Amino acid sequence: MSARERIHLYDTTLRDGAQTPGIDFSVEDKILVARMLDDLGVDYVEGGYPGANPTDDAFFTEKRTRRARFSAFGMTRRPGVSVSNDPGVAALLQAEADAVCFVAKSWDYHVEVALKTTGEENLAGIAQSVEAARAAGREVMVDCEHFFDGYKANPAYALACARTAHEAGARWVVLCDTNGGSMPHEIAAIVREVAAVVPGSHLGIHAHDDTGQAVANSLAAVAAGVRQIQGTLNGIGERCGNANLTTLIPTLKLKAEWADRFEIGVDDERLRTLTHVSRAFDELLNRAPARHAPYVGTSAFATKAGIHASAILKDPRTYEHVAPETVGNRRRVLVSDQAGRSNLLAELERLAIPHDPKDRRLDGLLREVKEREARGFAYEAADASFDLLARRHLGAVPAFFEVKSYRTMVERRYNARGEIVTMSEAVVKLKIDGETLMSVAEGNGPVNALDQALRKDLGRYQSEIETLELVDYKVRILNGGTGAVTRVLIESRDRATDRRWSTVGVSENIIDASFQALIDSITYKLLNAGAADL
Amino acid sequence: MSARERIHLYDTTLRDGAQTPGIDFSVEDKILVARMLDDLGVDYVEGGYPGANPTDDAFFTEKRTRRARFSAFGMTRRPGVSVSNDPGVAALLQAEADAVCFVAKSWDYHVEVALKTTGEENLAGIAQSVEAARAAGREVMVDCEHFFDGYKANPAYALACARTAHEAGARWVVLCDTNGGSMPHEIAAIVREVAAVVPGSHLGIHAHDDTGQAVANSLAAVAAGVRQIQGTLNGIGERCGNANLTTLIPTLKLKAEWADRFEIGVDDERLRTLTHVSRAFDELLNRAPARHAPYVGTSAFATKAGIHASAILKDPRTYEHVAPETVGNRRRVLVSDQAGRSNLLAELERLAIPHDPKDRRLDGLLREVKEREARGFAYEAADASFDLLARRHLGAVPAFFEVKSYRTMVERRYNARGEIVTMSEAVVKLKIDGETLMSVAEGNGPVNALDQALRKDLGRYQSEIETLELVDYKVRILNGGTGAVTRVLIESRDRATDRRWSTVGVSENIIDASFQALIDSITYKLLNAGAADL
Repeated sequence: MSARERIHLYDTTLRDGAQTPGIDFSVEDKILVARMLDDLGVDYVEGGYPGANPTDDAFFTEKRTRRARFSAFGMTRRPGVSVSNDPGVAALLQAEADAVCFVAKSWDYHVEVALKTTGEENLAGIAQSVEAARAAGREVMVDCEHFFDGYKANPAYALACARTAHEAGARWVVLCDTNGGSMPHEIAAIVREVAAVVPGSHLGIHAHDDTGQAVANSLAAVAAGVRQIQGTLNGIGERCGNANLTTLIPTLKLKAEWADRFEIGVDDERLRTLTHVSRAFDELLNRAPARHAPYVGTSAFATKAGIHASAILKDPRTYEHVAPETVGNRRRVLVSDQAGRSNLLAELERLAIPHDPKDRRLDGLLREVKEREARGFAYEAADASFDLLARRHLGAVPAFFEVKSYRTMVERRYNARGEIVTMSEAVVKLKIDGETLMSVAEGNGPVNALDQALRKDLGRYQSEIETLELVDYKVRILNGGTGAVTRVLIESRDRATDRRWSTVGVSENIIDASFQALIDSITYKLLNAGAADL
Repeated sequence: MSARERIHLYDTTLRDGAQTPGIDFSVEDKILVARMLDDLGVDYVEGGYPGANPTDDAFFTEKRTRRARFSAFGMTRRPGVSVSNDPGVAALLQAEADAVCFVAKSWDYHVEVALKTTGEENLAGIAQSVEAARAAGREVMVDCEHFFDGYKANPAYALACARTAHEAGARWVVLCDTNGGSMPHEIAAIVREVAAVVPGSHLGIHAHDDTGQAVANSLAAVAAGVRQIQGTLNGIGERCGNANLTTLIPTLKLKAEWADRFEIGVDDERLRTLTHVSRAFDELLNRAPARHAPYVGTSAFATKAGIHASAILKDPRTYEHVAPETVGNRRRVLVSDQAGRSNLLAELERLAIPHDPKDRRLDGLLREVKEREARGFAYEAADASFDLLARRHLGAVPAFFEVKSYRTMVERRYNARGEIVTMSEAVVKLKIDGETLMSVAEGNGPVNALDQALRKDLGRYQSEIETLELVDYKVRILNGGTGAVTRVLIESRDRATDRRWSTVGVSENIIDASFQALIDSITYKLLNAGAADL
């Protein structure tokens, strides 16, 4: 019954994405990513460039997708060589792939300067390469490189390339904005011209983000007639990246102007895995996810402003362009300097801190949060420190232990063998249940030594912190120079439960700031271990 | 002679940008950022929301820009209160600002649900607030919140809000896509409707990046008639961020379709500072710059070994949508050791380090740079440390002094009056000209104490370092967790010449990393003071 047209998603994470500076996929990485993409529901997975490097040769020894078509990328035959004698084309046709994507020059200037051949010979190469791959039983597509710049320079030649590929039997002719400098209205105008020669149902768009408009350019091309979009997970890719499929997929699914007219292979259930897929992919790349990424970023549905926060709690739909759950993300209302009382209440709610919204002590808490944030504390990044501050105002944090003093020392000197060694040591003096406990420990730095000394003997609480570990430590110097203050954020983890929490400390002295965050971390652990009930 | 129309840039980095999760500006931060924006050439700097928090109150005690108009943001008067009795409006008018930007509801649903008032009363609030600010001598603008969603729900009411603001004397009526969910074609269509009521020369656009199209939406609005764009540095802002001025400025300046029709306040010379401004801003936020950022990212003009790399060397213009130098960025071709060597030579050239390009010692230098960068050193951000490393390989750095040992200690305890005090002390033992010098000093932290002790007695070099001061200190933890390594960047300044230089240290131990950077800084100063000739 659906009169909606199908948009085909062609993922090039493993090929154009592999051009990203700093990203190198192993064969194992590629296998994992291909599986993620296949599960997500894209139509094509372009796996790489067989013949160009050993990784891609190994990857193409078998088909790596179950549902999606598996595609191999490579160049059309070289000038002056027959298809059957071109080793590049041979490698492509040997690859275990459902589809072959040829890249072909479509800007006459590049044909002459880079290929050093004639326009005619380039067209013959396109036609013969497409025919050879068709004869080998492959679905064929042609990426027309520099199509938009080429069209602006010589529209007749660019069109001839597209037409030649189409007439030779290519399923898709993909118009590439290789340098990424085109504007959406140019893309739309040129696509409309091309669609008069090659039907839109056979056209694709390949956009880059060099002016921050790869998504807009892809959508403009769809509106003008193309029915295939090429892009990558999280928008990785050469230079500024490719069109971000992680952004395009929810827009096509959730925005009425697209969803009413078009359908894609990602269903609602898979759409709900999108945030997970995006973050798992960053995990595999060992990089921090972009917090501000559309739809899937941790900040994509976060609100800090006092004026918005109170309204969001009244009716979230009017402050969110889509519901975060549809993409597997969640709403966050942050407490901060900007915050009003409603942020504070939302945060107490989220952290399940028992409170009466009318409690006058909440005013004091809000004042202290603001005053501390003005001094450099950042509670939105330190849930556990906020939790402790709130519970202290509401009278619910026992004094587990008292710090009488600490001392930490770093020494660098030559050892007996004449080598330079650096040694860090810390001493901590605590009072627990009237008893004074002193511990000393070494570490690979002053903070690590303090941490070691602190957990060496916590008296009757010792067993509660055995599984506690410090997993991240961040330092920021605020207002650089002489009036500088140091903010330390510590992330801790309980090995037993895999629960994580973050704490903050601020001081002129980096050691003191670190110590505050360490103490908060331990106190938070004790509070949540039920130690308060002992 | 120019028939080009002026586009006005309104920067809201310090207001909407301050809504970014994880970003908190101090007053000092705001002063620095306002100066950067002023120098860059934006037309308006929105400094914050006076009356909402102590930071903004302090920031608005004086005008913070020289060229740009300085703007204060706040709400229109509350329902049922006269303008003169509204403390929010009073705080706005007390702020030392050239302009006032009121935010007003323009979606009837929000007027009823969030403001709990009538449409009429909201319109009266807009008119009276604008008139009061005009009477106080301010330039006035009105941010129409949720304008596009509001227009879709009730076009007549949204238009009434815009018309009321305009007729009351607002210089600008700014159409806000508050939830960030609109598409460029919707923005364009609605702007054209509004421009029939309020002239485009009085309209502005405020876009958010929730579908990755804030830049495209801003440009679509300009094409449809608006003449003011609101945005932020590096696109920071609530949720997914605001329209990125760092992307929009070069597009408006360098792309013929915009540059031929419009002009902005950023001239060619300032445009060449854009990459620097973008990175300096990230430095201030102590976050790693986005490598893939359009125009200003380190990868924006980078090409990895592959089919493009050799072509780029033949004719860069055909593979770059704009020339990297126009925005102060540079081309990077990431290929093997050969390219590494030419980069190195270019760097030695830039720093005016005498060298013979055929010197075999350069191979050793290249190897050590690569090996150290793999360990976490960042020579791109530490010219002076690179300079020393290069000159050492070329045999041109004397051993001014030798560090025999150092020790630094931090102690927290109760003093005689029962107050908690934290004390930092450092001891340094140096050997200069065969003589051993020991110095001890206190500081407000362990690194400051070390710095003080180091410069207390440098023997015959003492006079050379009298004017040396540490102006910035940055810490980054690399590969967090157990295998963590600390990188410290120190910026130093010579008070006598105002010359600045940066040095780097890397170690498991934060004190050791800091010490390396301090020693490099002092050595660099001595080398450049001509101390080598003594």
